[in-house]
Amino acid sequence: MVTINTDRFRETFDAYSEIGGTEANGLHRLTASSADGYVRDQFVNDLEELGLTVRIDEIGNIFGRREGTNPNADPVLIGSHLDSQPYGGRFDGQLGVLTALETLRSFDDADITHHRPIEIVNWTNEEGSRFKPALLGSGVFVGEFDAGEALESTDANGTTLAEALEEIGYRGSEPAQPRNDIHSYLELHIEQGPVLEDLETSVGIVDGIYGMAWLQATICGDSDHAGPSPMHSRRDALVTAADVISGIRRLSNRFADDVVTTVGELEISPGSINVIPDKAEFTVDVRSYDDDVVATLVDHVERELRTACNREGTEFDLEEIWRIPHTEFSPRVREVSLEGAKSAGVSHLKMIGGAGHDANYLNEITDAGMLFVPSVDGKTHNEDEFTEWPDAVAGARAFAEATQRLADNT
Amino acid sequence: MVTINTDRFRETFDAYSEIGGTEANGLHRLTASSADGYVRDQFVNDLEELGLTVRIDEIGNIFGRREGTNPNADPVLIGSHLDSQPYGGRFDGQLGVLTALETLRSFDDADITHHRPIEIVNWTNEEGSRFKPALLGSGVFVGEFDAGEALESTDANGTTLAEALEEIGYRGSEPAQPRNDIHSYLELHIEQGPVLEDLETSVGIVDGIYGMAWLQATICGDSDHAGPSPMHSRRDALVTAADVISGIRRLSNRFADDVVTTVGELEISPGSINVIPDKAEFTVDVRSYDDDVVATLVDHVERELRTACNREGTEFDLEEIWRIPHTEFSPRVREVSLEGAKSAGVSHLKMIGGAGHDANYLNEITDAGMLFVPSVDGKTHNEDEFTEWPDAVAGARAFAEATQRLADNT
Repeated sequence: MVTINTDRFRETFDAYSEIGGTEANGLHRLTASSADGYVRDQFVNDLEELGLTVRIDEIGNIFGRREGTNPNADPVLIGSHLDSQPYGGRFDGQLGVLTALETLRSFDDADITHHRPIEIVNWTNEEGSRFKPALLGSGVFVGEFDAGEALESTDANGTTLAEALEEIGYRGSEPAQPRNDIHSYLELHIEQGPVLEDLETSVGIVDGIYGMAWLQATICGDSDHAGPSPMHSRRDALVTAADVISGIRRLSNRFADDVVTTVGELEISPGSINVIPDKAEFTVDVRSYDDDVVATLVDHVERELRTACNREGTEFDLEEIWRIPHTEFSPRVREVSLEGAKSAGVSHLKMIGGAGHDANYLNEITDAGMLFVPSVDGKTHNEDEFTEWPDAVAGARAFAEATQRLADNT
Repeated sequence: MVTINTDRFRETFDAYSEIGGTEANGLHRLTASSADGYVRDQFVNDLEELGLTVRIDEIGNIFGRREGTNPNADPVLIGSHLDSQPYGGRFDGQLGVLTALETLRSFDDADITHHRPIEIVNWTNEEGSRFKPALLGSGVFVGEFDAGEALESTDANGTTLAEALEEIGYRGSEPAQPRNDIHSYLELHIEQGPVLEDLETSVGIVDGIYGMAWLQATICGDSDHAGPSPMHSRRDALVTAADVISGIRRLSNRFADDVVTTVGELEISPGSINVIPDKAEFTVDVRSYDDDVVATLVDHVERELRTACNREGTEFDLEEIWRIPHTEFSPRVREVSLEGAKSAGVSHLKMIGGAGHDANYLNEITDAGMLFVPSVDGKTHNEDEFTEWPDAVAGARAFAEATQRLADNT
């Protein structure tokens, strides 16, 4: 049984939260910003104090290695990300990195040894807020993206990721490329949804992550004066979009509970109080654990568009921006996570995650898994994001137990 | 019977259209811009060539007076506006001013005399695109707005109307204030709707203009991650807005044909593909000739908001920005206009206008009326705005006949 030092865990979390912290108790720590530089310095310092061997790869991912009794065994990788959304929360990503750090510290406290090496990791640019795409560091690490192209990604001011990493001193020398020596990967993250809180449970053992599709819809109609244009002669792009958005909201009712559909962006033109909109552009995000259901949802979105355009006399274009299949995490890691939660004596349940994480990519090259802890009111990506401290501690206990089991796995 | 010189009318129209004309055959001639200055110079020059007495008031309204056989009789006022929407059309406003000009020129050709003086007018800032509010020049003229305040109105760069008028030399010395000596006002304008074209009729005798209300609605919900937020736990501001916009579109079906409802502006936040919108703000424009129906429509919009917010768990605020009662034009001017159209032998019908015009304000201080000519496809406020030339000529013939009758009215 590993003993977490809850005071130290809390103090570390609070100290890290000051770096880029906002007045409203949130976090504004964009990738490779000066705040990201400072928190990386703190992280590297903490790893070195633990006697870990620190390496930084060309994309800025930071690794710290604690040796195992068999230094030649494939290592267990644990961690998450320290970057945040603009004016986001303190828990998304950071809690996973600091849970991994506290795990290694408590191993050190108790002189715990393990068969395999353990590497703690901070992935660069998980959020995708400053540089695109999201999950950039882990994506390059597993070979999903090319490191050279990723380093040329620019922010809104035209600064490249390479320049920004140079600026804060975190453009490392080690190549970022797929490694075939990773034994397993475990990540703790906030749920970012309301399920655990609703069921008053501290830890979620994540069986997998939804598949999803991102669509971009464009509706074209006619722009006329709002006064002298009889209703029957109109071809209103916004009315068409409204019908589609209402329809997409109700689409989910026809499927299993796990289906979610969201229209997050909408822009219309010309956007004048007394002019009928001739153009409406919006995004659609559909998710399900069942990839066939995602495909069916995309078909239904197109059907909603066709029906609404026929009714209003407008025209549409629908483009698929992105589609990813669902992720099913490693049965072995899920099993070990469950044992860890039981051994730690914390309330837990098995669940499906709704959002993409670095663990999704890691699952492509190794046995990966995740633990979730509750998000109060399901809030995330804003300054109200919060996790009750006892839940964070319960998550850390389960995580430490699971990590120890993975590292002793022969 | 007055004889319009159709070649001269067309040449003048084409020449004026060059001033601020766009490559796509539209017009970009914002109030008190250099293009507006040039077209005013041309207009004043044309008035002086006709021997008219030109006056410019402090708000830039330009008047040219042709004396009557009784110079002490109250004058008939005819005209419209020479400013345009940004990248608007050549017909909106300009056609009315040049129809009035051609009317006076044809009176001159035929040495037509009339009992009353006739004053031709170009109103400043009808469109309200560069300076707010719209109908500024006529509004000050009838006492609806204070001249001093109107002159302090600023454009997007902070330039005041006073400065802009000084710059082009059209800040006149005559006070702009209500006159009680106006016998009547007649304005020709494009319909900006499809009715005349649909009914293959050249001239509309306008009985009046719709009443209208402008509303600003705000819906507040919760911003959460699009993935892990089950549909049943969401409070989506955009879905609520979509339901309301669909409902507002169908509202009109419950009333008479003349009811129109439009949502022209919509903005949502935070506006990210994978985030549920927590705020949606949109405008509503409702119109009817029946002021009670406008009031009922406003009630119905609020009811749609309440219903949709109850369903989605969101909250709303509804603010009335503007309400104007319907305008019923002077029976005398309508009668004279009808006689003019009959006498000119052009196809005509009686109709209600959907948009506000300078004539609305003039109707407050004198007997006012309007003639409409068709807008192809009902298009207006863009470069596609078009009126077939035979219709413009038919309108000018009816207008000249009606003007002569008003000026001989004792």
